[in-house]
Amino acid sequence: MQIRTDLAMESRAFANGLSGIATHTRKRGAIEETHVRIETEEAAQALDKARGTYITLSHPCLAWCPPEERKEMARAICEALKALLPSAGDLLVVGLGNRSMTADALGSRVLEDVLVTRHLKDLPEEALQGRLRGVCAAAPGVLGVTGLETAEVVQGIVEHVHPAAVIAIDALAARESTRICTTVQITDTGIRPGSGVGNHRAGLTKETLGVPVVAIGVPMVVYASVIARDALSLLLHDIGMDEAEHDQAMDTLMNKLAQKGIGELVVTPREVDELVGKVGRIIADGLNLAFQPRLSEEEIQFLSHDGP
Amino acid sequence: MQIRTDLAMESRAFANGLSGIATHTRKRGAIEETHVRIETEEAAQALDKARGTYITLSHPCLAWCPPEERKEMARAICEALKALLPSAGDLLVVGLGNRSMTADALGSRVLEDVLVTRHLKDLPEEALQGRLRGVCAAAPGVLGVTGLETAEVVQGIVEHVHPAAVIAIDALAARESTRICTTVQITDTGIRPGSGVGNHRAGLTKETLGVPVVAIGVPMVVYASVIARDALSLLLHDIGMDEAEHDQAMDTLMNKLAQKGIGELVVTPREVDELVGKVGRIIADGLNLAFQPRLSEEEIQFLSHDGP
Amino acid sequence: MQIRTDLAMESRAFANGLSGIATHTRKRGAIEETHVRIETEEAAQALDKARGTYITLSHPCLAWCPPEERKEMARAICEALKALLPSAGDLLVVGLGNRSMTADALGSRVLEDVLVTRHLKDLPEEALQGRLRGVCAAAPGVLGVTGLETAEVVQGIVEHVHPAAVIAIDALAARESTRICTTVQITDTGIRPGSGVGNHRAGLTKETLGVPVVAIGVPMVVYASVIARDALSLLLHDIGMDEAEHDQAMDTLMNKLAQKGIGELVVTPREVDELVGKVGRIIADGLNLAFQPRLSEEEIQFLSHDGP
Amino acid sequence: MQIRTDLAMESRAFANGLSGIATHTRKRGAIEETHVRIETEEAAQALDKARGTYITLSHPCLAWCPPEERKEMARAICEALKALLPSAGDLLVVGLGNRSMTADALGSRVLEDVLVTRHLKDLPEEALQGRLRGVCAAAPGVLGVTGLETAEVVQGIVEHVHPAAVIAIDALAARESTRICTTVQITDTGIRPGSGVGNHRAGLTKETLGVPVVAIGVPMVVYASVIARDALSLLLHDIGMDEAEHDQAMDTLMNKLAQKGIGELVVTPREVDELVGKVGRIIADGLNLAFQPRLSEEEIQFLSHDGP
Repeated sequence: MQIRTDLAMESRAFANGLSGIATHTRKRGAIEETHVRIETEEAAQALDKARGTYITLSHPCLAWCPPEERKEMARAICEALKALLPSAGDLLVVGLGNRSMTADALGSRVLEDVLVTRHLKDLPEEALQGRLRGVCAAAPGVLGVTGLETAEVVQGIVEHVHPAAVIAIDALAARESTRICTTVQITDTGIRPGSGVGNHRAGLTKETLGVPVVAIGVPMVVYASVIARDALSLLLHDIGMDEAEHDQAMDTLMNKLAQKGIGELVVTPREVDELVGKVGRIIADGLNLAFQPRLSEEEIQFLSHDGP
Repeated sequence: MQIRTDLAMESRAFANGLSGIATHTRKRGAIEETHVRIETEEAAQALDKARGTYITLSHPCLAWCPPEERKEMARAICEALKALLPSAGDLLVVGLGNRSMTADALGSRVLEDVLVTRHLKDLPEEALQGRLRGVCAAAPGVLGVTGLETAEVVQGIVEHVHPAAVIAIDALAARESTRICTTVQITDTGIRPGSGVGNHRAGLTKETLGVPVVAIGVPMVVYASVIARDALSLLLHDIGMDEAEHDQAMDTLMNKLAQKGIGELVVTPREVDELVGKVGRIIADGLNLAFQPRLSEEEIQFLSHDGP
Repeated sequence: MQIRTDLAMESRAFANGLSGIATHTRKRGAIEETHVRIETEEAAQALDKARGTYITLSHPCLAWCPPEERKEMARAICEALKALLPSAGDLLVVGLGNRSMTADALGSRVLEDVLVTRHLKDLPEEALQGRLRGVCAAAPGVLGVTGLETAEVVQGIVEHVHPAAVIAIDALAARESTRICTTVQITDTGIRPGSGVGNHRAGLTKETLGVPVVAIGVPMVVYASVIARDALSLLLHDIGMDEAEHDQAMDTLMNKLAQKGIGELVVTPREVDELVGKVGRIIADGLNLAFQPRLSEEEIQFLSHDGP
Repeated sequence: MQIRTDLAMESRAFANGLSGIATHTRKRGAIEETHVRIETEEAAQALDKARGTYITLSHPCLAWCPPEERKEMARAICEALKALLPSAGDLLVVGLGNRSMTADALGSRVLEDVLVTRHLKDLPEEALQGRLRGVCAAAPGVLGVTGLETAEVVQGIVEHVHPAAVIAIDALAARESTRICTTVQITDTGIRPGSGVGNHRAGLTKETLGVPVVAIGVPMVVYASVIARDALSLLLHDIGMDEAEHDQAMDTLMNKLAQKGIGELVVTPREVDELVGKVGRIIADGLNLAFQPRLSEEEIQFLSHDGP
């Protein structure tokens, strides 16, 4: 039975009695922060997630909350990133996904507001000289549009640019629709094959790129089949159906959904275009804070959104 | 029990034993054409649809079918329109919906390829002089963005332009996900309050505008709650659950979905951005053919997509 | 000899010894403010500008200046507007021009950040209840795209909405390239036929709409022929050419430019796409400040750029 | 004295009496085809262009001409390309420039319609199996946006993908405004530092990439200073000014333009947004014809514009 969520905190639910998983949760103002650490290979296989750390930051109405709470989220992203990134060396930010498909456009959207500095940091006339960490950015597109595996493009750039780490931004699929555009997952495990709204064929990991890869993702969709199954499961439980009948009912439902072509449909808020913009900007703020500790929040705000 | 479909051909399913509804279906090559005529006020109330004619044109893979089948669809749209529109006088095409929300952008998209001629048709230097029917176009936007009711804007334009008829293009909600971007509904009943992906607050009808209003719509979404309910209903039927238990189970499901905030979520294909473009172009082709009978298909093609 | 500038402050240069024109200039921090008042019909004809008040606000590098100086400009726009607008009643903001032509897209761009409230101001659940002035917005498009005269559309809306005043936003042509995206002109004379980058065929004025019309414009282009002529004129003057020879040389130049099809070309900065966005946001800030005096700058900022 | 044109056929005018340059011109229906071959290093330095072949295809109103003449242009591009490209092996198409700056967006625009096949050509279920040449595509963006030199990104991809050749698409600056969007230059010399609207800092050539590089460019702008100088030069010649006075007048003009900040302004048609779309599509048609000789024109049309 396939789990079909890119969030480790949701996979956790399938880990009944499993050892090798450490979890803790805390509140930071309006934000709930959950750490999941998958420590053993068995746990990794059981959850279909790589070994490593997954930090989830969640705000119930992230896109519409007041500016101060958005800044809190940006600062929380900054802190989580700092714990996972090397403290020196150039950084390469990779915006994954397809910019022409709204639910998969988060990566491209974040790049619009990331402060790109690699070409500036050594300019003698640069007012911020000596205070900028080198950051560069690439949006490699998707296989169906470019004919290139994302991994091929990113490997090529890494070999020429030699960044200290790669930060990859991606749109995710979740299990609960309440996670859509409210939750940010940050992990040191990189991007795994089969993950993301666009279903990456190859991974971006420390093994493939030779440098640490931190992945930042936000759920943008839930698969329709997941919603139907979860709703049914709760319901059958209420009715008091026994396990064998339950499983048979589930199979019947899955077959019916597949016949009607619903399996691959996604559930998404109608206003997803606007949500991508708002959440993308919060993530970019978090990245800029983490990448440029020698700039003030005002300088970052001006340079990334308002200035040249 | 709310039906929540904008397609009369889907509402029909709720008309068991009801009189006042005339239906017939025929195949036109790859296209299935269904006529539903709602003839009495009782039937109208039972189906929550206005009295009038609803023509549905359907192709199982409209967006991806070969060019010749798309032209067939455009010609079928043309014929359906000609039967409902006055044969002379200027025409006003209204693209409804929110251009910034992909699932609601069909109206704006169609306008991009409609051949606009009202300002050309009397120019002495115009090569097509005497052969153009006057067409003008407006995209009034949505209340949340403009602060204006669509009906206010369209009424104002109609009073100044005095078109012989209004053609309104809109994105619809359907009951079956297979209808999304495969079905075109054309009706002489205009746009009704509460219909469409954007849920229009006021209608565009012959009563409000004083001229005939033909509405053309394409399903872009299905509400998540509809999918869950339909799937469950089939399943409970299979299990052999009796009517009373069935209704109780349904209520339980609806409550669960509402608690999880799923009710207002929409199910849509991931590639909806691309689908809107493709289907919008087919509809624009159909409109241009119907509006400009004195131009050849080649002239229309050149003027609307390729030319000035 | 045609002047070809939409800025009254530039036309002034042609007013040698003419009476009926009152001018004064003052500095407001980084901003230069010029008032031109055209008081007589003779002066109006000599300058090819309507009688009325023209306020010009100018910052030498408006798009790239620090946030504080942008706020100063927004406040200066706010004050100029307040002097020209009625203090109560709903307001209709009209974004003129063609959103698909960058140099003509200022109007559409400004509307993206104008706080639209007409549909909210009487809602009982609205947190800002009693503090919102009703604002609505329309982007009527251009004749070549819609087949509708802008004036027809705006008149229709005005007759249904009954605003206390109309504010029209437009892209202008200037005489000096240094004016591009650095200067904002605010006038109580409305929009005149033949003005703007898109060359409006009909006007939007108090006479045609029945309510005061305040026009806000920013130069986005200079005609190539204007630059060539001005450069030549200065040069011939330096050479010491006499008046008759000068005029003949000018005629020769104009003919040469016309033969080469340069007359209608426009000179514009390469980064015009970015400039439209930046200047459009400053103007929207100024409008929002003027329209909503009972909201704080923070509330306006949040509601217009960051919030719902 | 700097020439400031990216078209070899315009540079030619500066080659009075110079040997090492071979030129010939012929008409192909509505299209004028010019071949310039720069054969010696002296000629290359005199013209500030690399040694190699430059084919220029020109139609006086390319964007607005009838479909048949556009197809002629696409076929002419196809033939020119075939003469310069290897006949087998995968191809990498690179769209240069900044997609957010209209006058520099040609490269990105062309990629939208290039048929990308590298990921399809070996699929057993592919209907076109055995008939597709492998094509992949990349839009590396510009240094100011990505912090990456275009050359770094393209080198990285070439090293992983090993294409038989690279085809680079770029927006150019011309000397004559009549060249804008009417002329296509195809050259086997690749992209040189300092060329293009975006002024590339590093080149894309056979020397840097290790595979043949064919560059395809279309003039999108003329520098305002070039127009002023050319107009003046003709005029001074008419007046009968002698050489020394002429040069002095030129210097004066250039200083005046520089003082007014006009030097870096570009002259471009107001409808440049629309022109980029139309010309980009013609170029994509030409590329697809050249790349896929085993597909019919209809198959290419369907797959690239209308189909999956």
